[in-house]
Amino acid sequence: MSTAQDRRFLALALSLGRRGQGRTWPNPAVGCVLVKDGRILGRGWTAPGGRPHAEVRALAQAGDAARGATAYVSLEPCAHHGKTPPCAQALIDAGVARVVAPLTDSDPRVSGQGFEMLRAAGIEVSTGLMHDAAAEDHAGFFLRTELGRPLVTLKLATSFDGRIATATGDSQWITGPEARRAVHAMRMRHDAVMVGAGTARADDPSLTVRDLGVSHQPVRVVVSRRLDLALTGQLARTAAQVPVWLCHGRDVDPVLREAWEGLGATLLPCDVVGGQLDPVSVLQALGAEGLTRVFCEGGGALAASLLAADLVDELVGMSAGVVIGAEGLPSLGAMGLARLAEAPRFTLRTGRPLGGDVLHHWRRATFG
Amino acid sequence: MSTAQDRRFLALALSLGRRGQGRTWPNPAVGCVLVKDGRILGRGWTAPGGRPHAEVRALAQAGDAARGATAYVSLEPCAHHGKTPPCAQALIDAGVARVVAPLTDSDPRVSGQGFEMLRAAGIEVSTGLMHDAAAEDHAGFFLRTELGRPLVTLKLATSFDGRIATATGDSQWITGPEARRAVHAMRMRHDAVMVGAGTARADDPSLTVRDLGVSHQPVRVVVSRRLDLALTGQLARTAAQVPVWLCHGRDVDPVLREAWEGLGATLLPCDVVGGQLDPVSVLQALGAEGLTRVFCEGGGALAASLLAADLVDELVGMSAGVVIGAEGLPSLGAMGLARLAEAPRFTLRTGRPLGGDVLHHWRRATFG
Repeated sequence: MSTAQDRRFLALALSLGRRGQGRTWPNPAVGCVLVKDGRILGRGWTAPGGRPHAEVRALAQAGDAARGATAYVSLEPCAHHGKTPPCAQALIDAGVARVVAPLTDSDPRVSGQGFEMLRAAGIEVSTGLMHDAAAEDHAGFFLRTELGRPLVTLKLATSFDGRIATATGDSQWITGPEARRAVHAMRMRHDAVMVGAGTARADDPSLTVRDLGVSHQPVRVVVSRRLDLALTGQLARTAAQVPVWLCHGRDVDPVLREAWEGLGATLLPCDVVGGQLDPVSVLQALGAEGLTRVFCEGGGALAASLLAADLVDELVGMSAGVVIGAEGLPSLGAMGLARLAEAPRFTLRTGRPLGGDVLHHWRRATFG
Repeated sequence: MSTAQDRRFLALALSLGRRGQGRTWPNPAVGCVLVKDGRILGRGWTAPGGRPHAEVRALAQAGDAARGATAYVSLEPCAHHGKTPPCAQALIDAGVARVVAPLTDSDPRVSGQGFEMLRAAGIEVSTGLMHDAAAEDHAGFFLRTELGRPLVTLKLATSFDGRIATATGDSQWITGPEARRAVHAMRMRHDAVMVGAGTARADDPSLTVRDLGVSHQPVRVVVSRRLDLALTGQLARTAAQVPVWLCHGRDVDPVLREAWEGLGATLLPCDVVGGQLDPVSVLQALGAEGLTRVFCEGGGALAASLLAADLVDELVGMSAGVVIGAEGLPSLGAMGLARLAEAPRFTLRTGRPLGGDVLHHWRRATFG
């Protein structure tokens, strides 16, 4: 089969896999396409909650026709008996003749063993095609497996001069409706939305995905050392319906902790370093709970602490054509940098108009 | 003749006219194409210094062949005897049959009279085609004619978070070589480059156009209330070669004034309002000297004063993928805004990658 055709079907598998982003954690969001004689027999992607897996769903669609087919999978099929039987075995049992996958799973329970099982059963295995695109899609899953922390996307929507509010706190609206809609779409593709305590207090945000016709809601994470958040705000009022996780210092007032637990929030005690919650500890706690992709929307103090600790993987800017001036609230807090050479650098992925604003998306220079 | 053909030749005339931008002041940068039977007989644009005019140069190329031709001109031909005879008369004398021009000159010595002269001589005159593009090209000339001030382009090259230097003043380099080259190309298309005194002191810039193989240099303007600029800096050392104009308060130390005059600088006394140089007065002084297009490169105080006075026509941002944090030097100084509704708003023209940075170009919402 031609590489062009392989690339086309594998790209479809990757695209299907991305449909699950934000809702398969702690599992990877995988896509699978079964093809025979150029015809698609089955398509699948990891179901919400992480099960069933993409391969199983595609095989169910294809039925007996899967015999002799090629399976295009966006990640190495799993080889271990977890809550479901291994997908590699399911592909063998279905009589698949060939498997095309871009890369090896980084999970030590799978890594290389899925391919090994397939090859041992006489199935031809091709890897390497679309490696970089797949590595990007699964970056959050890999970061959690390898480093114990989720991928972090930091989004900052600012005025032309990098401000997020006037000195009096007026911040509605800086960017336009298209940018705000894009934010909701980005939230949906992450496992969780995260803000600092200052933003939660100042904006009383709901942090839910709206206007996109979806029922799925990402987890809402607030980083608050002292848990001094309004117990009557939007997050508190809705904590029983949509998950609210609070990352706080271990020395927090037990009365506040119990109050939030009573409202239905999940409490995650984290380390305090130098008077501030340690961003490494916060992300480790989120990773331990299974999150693979976190979308941080500020505020300036949390954003600066993540950047200073080199924990921001994707940086999304939305710049509006309005100028606020130096008294305005900066999008980023203090970072303690003296020299430009010490400043975190990001590589441009895209820069383009988004409604009346400009979208710029960067990736950290040392990604992955 | 078809409108499509008219549009094509008129677009060429506009494009030729733009070649003169930055070097024809106080005259407009006009382009002219002479066409007969679909063939181009002559092309011209306003010469450096503003004379000869575009029409005269195109007619000289065409010679006798101009008889019966169509003249495409990017602005109404002049009708007054200034330092040169009127171009409308030259077109009549050459026997041109038709003139296509997008719009009427705003100069009261010309406005409508050029077209009137042509029509009175039996020449067909078409106007209105490409009106908006021509209005944009001549915006600086029109602003000076109508309001007595030049067009102002404000360029700010910043970090992702809108900073132009670290707390210790480190600013080299935030944006990349492509962005810096684009800045030189923009300088070249303006009559003058302007900075505030703080930037002149901090950066000791030469403000010249480099690396583009051009001999033309825009005027260098420094806005300095007290003239407290280094007498040994780059601007001082080169003031005899490339014009340096200093906008200063009327109460400036006479010793400093004489020192700068001795170096070859032009001194422009301006009004002081509330302890600061009044940006309206500064731009009126530059307009009175003949400038039609000024390229302001900061610093933050001058940029904020221009924006607060609604004197910025074009806003150019260059954002780099580096984060500096809140201690860094902001690109814009204080603007005294409480509500977002009071903040100056700009409309996006373009947003795109420029090397490793993002270029975003805005125009004030109430342009022209």
